[in-house]
Amino acid sequence: MKTTLSWNRMPDRIRKLAFSCLAALVFSSCGSEHFVADISDYGAVSGGADCTGAVTAALEDCLGKKTSRIVFPEGEYHFYGDNGKDKYLFVSNNDEGLKRVVFLMEDMKNIEIDGGGSRFVFHGHLNPFVIDNSENVVFRNFSMDFDRPFHSEGRIIANHARGIDIEISDEFPFRISNGVLVFTGREPEEERKTTVGMKPGYPYGSLLEFDPVRRETAFMARDFYLDGNPLPAESLGGNRVRVFLDGLHGTPGNIMLFAPSHRNYPAIVFSDCSDCLVENVTIYHTGGMGIVGQRTSDIRVSGCTVTPSEGRIVSCTADATHFSNCSGNLVLDNNLFENQIDDATNIHGIYVRVSEVLAPDCVVVDLMHKQQQGFDFLKPGMDVEIIDSHSLIEKFRAKVVSAERINKTRTILKMDRDLGVLPGDAVAQCGSYPEVHIYGNTVRGNRARGMLLDSRGRTVVEDNYFHVPGAAILFEGDACFWYEQGGVSDCLIKNNVFDNCLYGVWGKAVIDVGSGIYKDREKSRYNQNIRVTGNTFRLFDRPLLLNAYCVDGLEWKDNIIEDTDDYPAIRNNQDYCRIEHCDRCDIGPLTIKKQMP
Amino acid sequence: MKTTLSWNRMPDRIRKLAFSCLAALVFSSCGSEHFVADISDYGAVSGGADCTGAVTAALEDCLGKKTSRIVFPEGEYHFYGDNGKDKYLFVSNNDEGLKRVVFLMEDMKNIEIDGGGSRFVFHGHLNPFVIDNSENVVFRNFSMDFDRPFHSEGRIIANHARGIDIEISDEFPFRISNGVLVFTGREPEEERKTTVGMKPGYPYGSLLEFDPVRRETAFMARDFYLDGNPLPAESLGGNRVRVFLDGLHGTPGNIMLFAPSHRNYPAIVFSDCSDCLVENVTIYHTGGMGIVGQRTSDIRVSGCTVTPSEGRIVSCTADATHFSNCSGNLVLDNNLFENQIDDATNIHGIYVRVSEVLAPDCVVVDLMHKQQQGFDFLKPGMDVEIIDSHSLIEKFRAKVVSAERINKTRTILKMDRDLGVLPGDAVAQCGSYPEVHIYGNTVRGNRARGMLLDSRGRTVVEDNYFHVPGAAILFEGDACFWYEQGGVSDCLIKNNVFDNCLYGVWGKAVIDVGSGIYKDREKSRYNQNIRVTGNTFRLFDRPLLLNAYCVDGLEWKDNIIEDTDDYPAIRNNQDYCRIEHCDRCDIGPLTIKKQMP
Repeated sequence: MKTTLSWNRMPDRIRKLAFSCLAALVFSSCGSEHFVADISDYGAVSGGADCTGAVTAALEDCLGKKTSRIVFPEGEYHFYGDNGKDKYLFVSNNDEGLKRVVFLMEDMKNIEIDGGGSRFVFHGHLNPFVIDNSENVVFRNFSMDFDRPFHSEGRIIANHARGIDIEISDEFPFRISNGVLVFTGREPEEERKTTVGMKPGYPYGSLLEFDPVRRETAFMARDFYLDGNPLPAESLGGNRVRVFLDGLHGTPGNIMLFAPSHRNYPAIVFSDCSDCLVENVTIYHTGGMGIVGQRTSDIRVSGCTVTPSEGRIVSCTADATHFSNCSGNLVLDNNLFENQIDDATNIHGIYVRVSEVLAPDCVVVDLMHKQQQGFDFLKPGMDVEIIDSHSLIEKFRAKVVSAERINKTRTILKMDRDLGVLPGDAVAQCGSYPEVHIYGNTVRGNRARGMLLDSRGRTVVEDNYFHVPGAAILFEGDACFWYEQGGVSDCLIKNNVFDNCLYGVWGKAVIDVGSGIYKDREKSRYNQNIRVTGNTFRLFDRPLLLNAYCVDGLEWKDNIIEDTDDYPAIRNNQDYCRIEHCDRCDIGPLTIKKQMP
Repeated sequence: MKTTLSWNRMPDRIRKLAFSCLAALVFSSCGSEHFVADISDYGAVSGGADCTGAVTAALEDCLGKKTSRIVFPEGEYHFYGDNGKDKYLFVSNNDEGLKRVVFLMEDMKNIEIDGGGSRFVFHGHLNPFVIDNSENVVFRNFSMDFDRPFHSEGRIIANHARGIDIEISDEFPFRISNGVLVFTGREPEEERKTTVGMKPGYPYGSLLEFDPVRRETAFMARDFYLDGNPLPAESLGGNRVRVFLDGLHGTPGNIMLFAPSHRNYPAIVFSDCSDCLVENVTIYHTGGMGIVGQRTSDIRVSGCTVTPSEGRIVSCTADATHFSNCSGNLVLDNNLFENQIDDATNIHGIYVRVSEVLAPDCVVVDLMHKQQQGFDFLKPGMDVEIIDSHSLIEKFRAKVVSAERINKTRTILKMDRDLGVLPGDAVAQCGSYPEVHIYGNTVRGNRARGMLLDSRGRTVVEDNYFHVPGAAILFEGDACFWYEQGGVSDCLIKNNVFDNCLYGVWGKAVIDVGSGIYKDREKSRYNQNIRVTGNTFRLFDRPLLLNAYCVDGLEWKDNIIEDTDDYPAIRNNQDYCRIEHCDRCDIGPLTIKKQMP
């Protein structure tokens, strides 16, 4: 499905047709070299038995074939770790580690996994899909869930002076261990205690209250960060527990989320791949992000669903999708992303920080964010930009001559120019950004924001529905904390419905700039050419609709608001826009419609 | 230093002389190909600056040289992680992981590191020495310590109804985090909280009380196991903390150890090496075992010291030395091993468990103990024994035809015979056991036992001094819990002083059999030919001196006891030996000497 750069400019119908034709071409034109593996021929059966070995064997048979397809007869397939493959994974914005992988696909070409409408159930500490250095990979027609989710939930039954009382369903096994609340797996605990050998368990790192009626984060709820340590607690008998944390209160009947302290088990990870499609896949749960692309070109997520399964309020434990240093066409269309613990998507590059200048053309650079370590993107011949990390202003560009990796954090970078680079400057790849098309998606009920748009390729966000507690659209990028490269150059936000957003604490405006520009704001124009047109804002009070700074080229046209009384009003801004340090702004009026009865 | 099998039978003087000559030969006979690297020529300076890069550069220069030597001018050298090398390590009985290594020595030959009496100080989460697939490697003449140890200590100031109050010195930074006690590094904490990115920290997994006057575990103190979770706690102001744990009490003035929940940072690890010598090296601290040998032949630890540095009660946080599946000559002589959190040494093989029988000659085997995963020892051509895992009785032997590793836990093993092997049976290497000579060592003040002797090679333990809270000598081995292969075949315990052992909870007798034989004890003779002769037992009460079962060939001769009143008497056994299911026993009388005034 390698497509041209004008892909995003095709009409929708044509685009879909073109896509189908291309796929059909790939999977039909190769005659006898098209290999089809029926997973049941490999011993996989619907029911309860471990199907991991069957998957490994089928994938091995696909290696070297011109095109191949693994099909699952509709059923419920279970996967355990005993026969999985080990691979050390560095997944951007998730946690690194040696992972036990079920579908490990390395160096493959032209392969499709068709689940046939099946349900895949993963048991234990597993990474479902890892795709590395592969081309033209398609996943379609299945759902995936974990038997024991990596997060836990408890229903608030009361507040007390130093915390809350909760009731925990059998879905989330737990015990009180030496005075703290610990969530466990379903298997019996090891009885003999020693100084060594704990199982990985289900540790939690933050708490957040959810409203089970609205099925979203509770109104204006905030995160309680725990630094990865469990909370003091006492049993109240049965499944009831008294939890102690200063300041922790909630509404009885609401659900308190115990969010995992790590993101170890993202569902589907593409690294250094091209032409990837995930279609009609439902992710009920995963212990990390849903779909991650890193250093991957041409990726499409279409008609997928991220949603919690029966009896849970949370789906993925981090972003539904996330893309770092991707290129080509990046398409998210007709998906439902709900109740994940973080944003629906985040599309960005990665900055390294200059730690030391060894010579005018040679610097030591470090990956700074813990979850970016091992993100090995600097290659000879690559174009890079060198920026001031506090203003995000580009100082100059250069070409990488050599990149000597010292360890997962540090690289010695030789460039083709004498630079005058300074310690503290940041370096990122430049020139190869994805063209982004996001349309027809629904985002709701999740923690934090809707979409973080940080690609410098043409970005179109149209015909989506957002009902999120923070900013619906956030323009990010910084070189001091998250080290995510951003700064759009051409972004159209069109015909979307922003329905009662900002009912939580994660944003200043429905469309928000959050770029980390700490100095020279009068000069920095990190984001460029943002057009917001034809959108509907449904509002329960008067929040900011647009918060912008350091933007060159800002257009606001034909947007309307509708009033609702769905939440208590808490803000009453006179202006709907706050614009600072921007050039070429064309801000039109808002059309105000009355609430429909 | 490749030596003949009669090494251990040489007189001591001759042995030392031979050793020196061999070493001199190696390091002098190669003329211009003998390379000497002065670490100061690589930019390393005594003081505070990071010397890791200098070490890496010097080691690179040694690669390919016939013989080489890196020398440190006497000084204090500091090592930080920024420039260390990454390597994923599976170290037997320590915790696996991607480690940041300072001295990473892979595929090297004939190399000596001479510290010149220097002090090496490691900062942060580092692995000091990792030696892989190398021959003739010598370390000598340095001490090593960590700036912030991986364990923590607190002085008990009072008991309260639900635990203890402690005072924590500046040596062990801590904070109360959301109601639990957390130990931290020396660097300032990250202020901005998010749902991701905790630092590794200094977590603790068990508590143990130490007596700071005697400088050993407190009389009859036991471990409090915490399952890796921190304890509820309240600040009492300043460095004083109230800790909550049911049943936790101690003697005010004593030290409570917070032992690490993991063994991530062993000091010196030899994997798949031969001819290794560690001489005159002092290990003040390490976050795991001190010196580990795995699948290594001919290793000697001589004149070394494991001892805590000023202001601490604990040295290594696990065994001082540990050897798994080693071979050749294994010599421990003239060392002091004190105040480590586990035994002075443990010398054993490793069992895998048969999980499934695929064909009469083909089985699925798993490494069962979490800290043995990745221990990749099964190779084509290897002789293995298949045993019943509950009686430890050998069923038959076979030769490995192929070993297909599925993941770090699981291997598919094809053997050269139809076996009649059953699921649950255990498999281990056989025929290649180390000859062990342990002499002139002092073991004292540590947690648990003295030495675990589980090699089937000739084992001589002579002229050592033991003052340990558990068994001084333990014969172990089991295929159900630790999965450590044992069963001595020829073991002489001679002329040792066992001084007031068993003042703690870790053993039934001064010389103890603990092998995990759960059925057919009347038939199993797992240990053979144990001779205990000419030893002195200093006793504060009447414990068992010898507890033996399932031994074939047991001799007790010319041992004497001396009475002391160093501890309160708690036992009054009529007999000094308990012997069950043993053959060929020759148990002589004890000579009782009066306590010297």
